[in-house]
Amino acid sequence: MISNKMQDYVKNSSAVRAMFEEGKKMAAIYGADKVYDFSLGNPNVAAPQAVKDAIMEILEEDAVEIHGYMNNSGYEDVRGRIADSINEKYHTYFNYTNIIMTVGAAGGLNVILKTLLDPKDEVIVFAPYFGEYRSYVNNYDGKLVTVSPKTTDFQPNLEEFKDKITKKTKAVIVNSPNNPTGVIYSEETIQKLSKILEDKQMEHGIQIYIISDEPYRELVYNNQKVPYLTKYYANTIVGYSYSKSLSLPGERIGYLVIPDEAEDSELLIAGANVANRILGFVNAPSLFQKVVAKCIDSKTDLSYYNRNRETLYQALVEYGYHCIKPDGAFYLFVRSPIADEKEFCEAAKEQHILVVPGSSFECPGYIRIAYCVAYETIVNALPGFKVLAQKYIES
Amino acid sequence: MISNKMQDYVKNSSAVRAMFEEGKKMAAIYGADKVYDFSLGNPNVAAPQAVKDAIMEILEEDAVEIHGYMNNSGYEDVRGRIADSINEKYHTYFNYTNIIMTVGAAGGLNVILKTLLDPKDEVIVFAPYFGEYRSYVNNYDGKLVTVSPKTTDFQPNLEEFKDKITKKTKAVIVNSPNNPTGVIYSEETIQKLSKILEDKQMEHGIQIYIISDEPYRELVYNNQKVPYLTKYYANTIVGYSYSKSLSLPGERIGYLVIPDEAEDSELLIAGANVANRILGFVNAPSLFQKVVAKCIDSKTDLSYYNRNRETLYQALVEYGYHCIKPDGAFYLFVRSPIADEKEFCEAAKEQHILVVPGSSFECPGYIRIAYCVAYETIVNALPGFKVLAQKYIES
Repeated sequence: MISNKMQDYVKNSSAVRAMFEEGKKMAAIYGADKVYDFSLGNPNVAAPQAVKDAIMEILEEDAVEIHGYMNNSGYEDVRGRIADSINEKYHTYFNYTNIIMTVGAAGGLNVILKTLLDPKDEVIVFAPYFGEYRSYVNNYDGKLVTVSPKTTDFQPNLEEFKDKITKKTKAVIVNSPNNPTGVIYSEETIQKLSKILEDKQMEHGIQIYIISDEPYRELVYNNQKVPYLTKYYANTIVGYSYSKSLSLPGERIGYLVIPDEAEDSELLIAGANVANRILGFVNAPSLFQKVVAKCIDSKTDLSYYNRNRETLYQALVEYGYHCIKPDGAFYLFVRSPIADEKEFCEAAKEQHILVVPGSSFECPGYIRIAYCVAYETIVNALPGFKVLAQKYIES
Repeated sequence: MISNKMQDYVKNSSAVRAMFEEGKKMAAIYGADKVYDFSLGNPNVAAPQAVKDAIMEILEEDAVEIHGYMNNSGYEDVRGRIADSINEKYHTYFNYTNIIMTVGAAGGLNVILKTLLDPKDEVIVFAPYFGEYRSYVNNYDGKLVTVSPKTTDFQPNLEEFKDKITKKTKAVIVNSPNNPTGVIYSEETIQKLSKILEDKQMEHGIQIYIISDEPYRELVYNNQKVPYLTKYYANTIVGYSYSKSLSLPGERIGYLVIPDEAEDSELLIAGANVANRILGFVNAPSLFQKVVAKCIDSKTDLSYYNRNRETLYQALVEYGYHCIKPDGAFYLFVRSPIADEKEFCEAAKEQHILVVPGSSFECPGYIRIAYCVAYETIVNALPGFKVLAQKYIES
């Protein structure tokens, strides 16, 4: 028999799985091009040509080195190249020692949570938030503490945040550009949030770390700025992934930044190195470490996502939906025309449209539309969204 | 401050790190070719040409598919190809659903332990054993129970094993060909071990799973057979890695086999799928899933390791060392000429020879020599081994 914890997970995950299976079933009945699946954050844009070129180049090097073990934190030259690139972009002062290559951002988050958390330590998240955070914190017997959503602008609710910090608070997860809203937390937000944390650290005589989960950092429209959090708050650890910026989600490649300015940074770095090993990652995939170093200035095709964003947003607003126009990521977080958004998601299925209920992000009454799909999917789904609007939105 | 558990790990890991740093320092002083590092199981043989060919072929396919997300358990066609290959070799009846692609064997072991273990559940290992098993079991608050080594032949001590099985026993880790001894557990051993487990399952009314950790399955000399454990004991889960068989340790690619015959197999499979996701692996690296499927019949150059094995073994025996000649893996486990093998390891360093003390594998009085090195390293290290023999072995 499997463990008690896992029995619960299996039960819950079967709901997501059911949706996935239903999508496949619908595709089989109506044809894949007649089912509009907006449920997954799986980029539909190919990796830039630079990725292929980099692989070809690297394959000419020594095969023992390309595919071999290295330090659990990754190749030093790769880490140095990444540190240089961050320094150049954000005027920081990182060294290769501050960078730890990880198996995607999900791997990085697990590594740093394993490093930080004693049982019952509290980790604060701002709703709406990526549901996996709960599992990651559970993995290390931490306690997830949720700050309720501020639906006016989906910036974090800082008043409530202040009240929820206790002596047991060990970390705060910040995710901007945000999944599921696409909102970028403003510089003002970050400054206030940092000030609150500094005061609370002092008040309780503890260290509270920001874990900045940044898979969408490069997915930003209209040249909006995403503040680099280590510059605002010393105890910041950054988790990054190339899943979206280079369209490599399946390759599981990312990194952690642990600045020297963070309290106990040497222990954090040594701990993360060990955690990477004992959690079974051992190291980030070796070939793709070398690939991302070579592609450091490449980026996925943002205009593709932007066209999707503009087309979908304009149409939805025209039909009467309420939605904040986001500046980043590839999600729209739309107010459900009816209070029970799960009921709306069911109705959407009748239009062959698959979207995720906001309650999956602890923000009921909303739905998430992942627009990282083919442009045709957007265009072909619009009539369905219109039908739903006519049926459910009071004019 | 980092967690209490991790503080202990960081303390312990600094010893290994110290050795690694000392090796680098020695290399800087005496020259890398004058330092004989037998401490790491890092293959020195390049991946077969088929790996490079496979990558080139795959890169011609659709880039979104190559580098994208798939089911957390891996691509169905890859899993099917692997199931077919196991069936062909071992006359088993696996389907793609029985295969779960993992981030190496270390990832696979963590996935299955997370799936199985409730806190305080017991996992039995046979000394000498790979030290990381202790960390993996600790990750899920399990209790590692050690069976002491049988140094006459390094087959598991089954009498002691029987006595150590309790109502809390959830799993037994079997590792054959073995790290650190290179010994293959005989068919007789496997039959007896299975019988003991079946009796104990009945006696206690519980399920006990064998977790067969098999990164060295293909590294076997003189056509010795390695029994396929699912055929002897229904509750067997296999963990495999391509790290050694295709010399791809840095790429982190392997799989779990969960047979339909295992009790609660559906829950195990569903649980492993979820564990893969929530531990942050998400899925095994996508490109290399496709690579191993294309290279299913390729193998690393065994003759290379065999030459190392023969040369080193013959010389050591001639110098008076005691060692069982192993049939698999790329390790020799040699009796230390002096009782305190750590002292011997220190003395070896004076000869620029780096080896690992047996106490790292819970088998003091022995040293592990990893001969997955350049042939020249073996040849050039022999005079040092001879000096040590003359000094420490009584004639």
